[in-house]
Amino acid sequence: MKVFVIGVGLIGGSFALALKEAYKNVTIFGIDNNDAYLNEALELGVIDEKVDWNDLGEAEIVYTAIPVNVLCELLPEILDRVSDDTLVIDGGSTKSLICEAVKEHPKRRNFLAAHPIAGTEFSGPSAAIKDLYKNKTNIICEVEKTAFKLQEKALKIFTDIGMRIRYMDPHSHDKHIAYVSHLSHISAFMLGKTVIEKEEENERDIFDMAGSGFESTVRLAKSSPAMWTPIFQQNKTNVLETLEKYIANLQQFRDLMVQDDYESIYEVMENTNKIKEILKGITVKN
Amino acid sequence: MKVFVIGVGLIGGSFALALKEAYKNVTIFGIDNNDAYLNEALELGVIDEKVDWNDLGEAEIVYTAIPVNVLCELLPEILDRVSDDTLVIDGGSTKSLICEAVKEHPKRRNFLAAHPIAGTEFSGPSAAIKDLYKNKTNIICEVEKTAFKLQEKALKIFTDIGMRIRYMDPHSHDKHIAYVSHLSHISAFMLGKTVIEKEEENERDIFDMAGSGFESTVRLAKSSPAMWTPIFQQNKTNVLETLEKYIANLQQFRDLMVQDDYESIYEVMENTNKIKEILKGITVKN
Repeated sequence: MKVFVIGVGLIGGSFALALKEAYKNVTIFGIDNNDAYLNEALELGVIDEKVDWNDLGEAEIVYTAIPVNVLCELLPEILDRVSDDTLVIDGGSTKSLICEAVKEHPKRRNFLAAHPIAGTEFSGPSAAIKDLYKNKTNIICEVEKTAFKLQEKALKIFTDIGMRIRYMDPHSHDKHIAYVSHLSHISAFMLGKTVIEKEEENERDIFDMAGSGFESTVRLAKSSPAMWTPIFQQNKTNVLETLEKYIANLQQFRDLMVQDDYESIYEVMENTNKIKEILKGITVKN
Repeated sequence: MKVFVIGVGLIGGSFALALKEAYKNVTIFGIDNNDAYLNEALELGVIDEKVDWNDLGEAEIVYTAIPVNVLCELLPEILDRVSDDTLVIDGGSTKSLICEAVKEHPKRRNFLAAHPIAGTEFSGPSAAIKDLYKNKTNIICEVEKTAFKLQEKALKIFTDIGMRIRYMDPHSHDKHIAYVSHLSHISAFMLGKTVIEKEEENERDIFDMAGSGFESTVRLAKSSPAMWTPIFQQNKTNVLETLEKYIANLQQFRDLMVQDDYESIYEVMENTNKIKEILKGITVKN
């Protein structure tokens, strides 16, 4: 199986490693505009060969794991270059604009729009993990627009690397993912910013007092700005909606504190504690 | 060694287990206003005996791990009841009001004000872990106000259970901990609230899309409202300061998105990425 991975970082690299784990007969060809990454991926055994755009015609499967704005630009060109039987899968965190970008493309049926709910805060080929996708959910959008044979092929691969499948329309995907993923990133980035600013102001040693609770809450602030800026941009409307609701909740919490209404603060926290039960479900699933 | 633990949940119970691990000759006497907790702690071997306030005169060491408002009320009475040689240590997340509460107490020198930077989002005796304090920092306030012999005794215990010590005045403690601990809790609680509200609005299955990133960022929203409400109350001024700065940063991020200024958004995230290096330090320490 000849698989071309475009973008050999955390997401693309982990997909490559998962395929190598699942199948004997797979050769991974890597494409990346960062040549250092490409060499690193080769050294680490994430890919087997460096190739370029001119080789795309030879691909049986293409997996794209690049910033979503670049993907929107390049996906039509990728489809132009692949053969009639090639399956092209993306791993982008937004789906509406990506599906829109190839809506009228003559090879639309070669493309499967997907978003694996998996990742870490690290990036680059060295962040790739063979088990990243195991027991994780893959959200597939507009499955009916992909050729049936290629749907089958993709599903077999996802199952073989241990993923669960959910189908969803791109609009619902973008709306919901803003809440459970995009907002968490902004929340963590701004928490990190607030504490760093305080440290810079006068306290060099404030982080000596930080424990595992802070570390967990701020973890996503290590994420790649190159990946996340275009995600916020592409999902602007939904992200703004979640962000405004989040700010309103924080503002309300602040007002309750100003009013010394600790009874209401207790209640708000107690009601939110039910996230325990909800997260139990997540832990099982992810 | 006769150790009385008042409040046999996560913090007190873990202290008990750590002492049992470090010393052969230690008996843990448990006091808790929740009798079910006390029985559970006994069954789990967290404590050796159930006792009550009238027995406090027999304690060699008293460790208090109760909500900080209750502690402020009860600490004077605890000091009234203990012998002249007893060491009383607290584990509260705020320090100014606690130190204030016993400032003029005739047995002030029997008290050591401490805050172990350790915990999980769970509570109750079943949440107690013997290694909770290993390699963690214990912040000690107003050490000069504790009798020298009792300081020595406390330091030996903290060292024996694997803790590092930092000295700090209560005012600085409360100011800094608001940033690196209290704010993280509010940020997580409000993230949880925002997403739960969205789910309740119309989307029963939004959490199916949540991954480990959301789980990590929202983890502290599982924390106990009984512990955290009085912490926010006691540290109101500092917590409000951090919360207002956090809201301002989120608001600024929102404005940049509204203005489509993704260059600035990229920069903000890139600058915050230095939290990576800072957290590396925390991981080593905690």
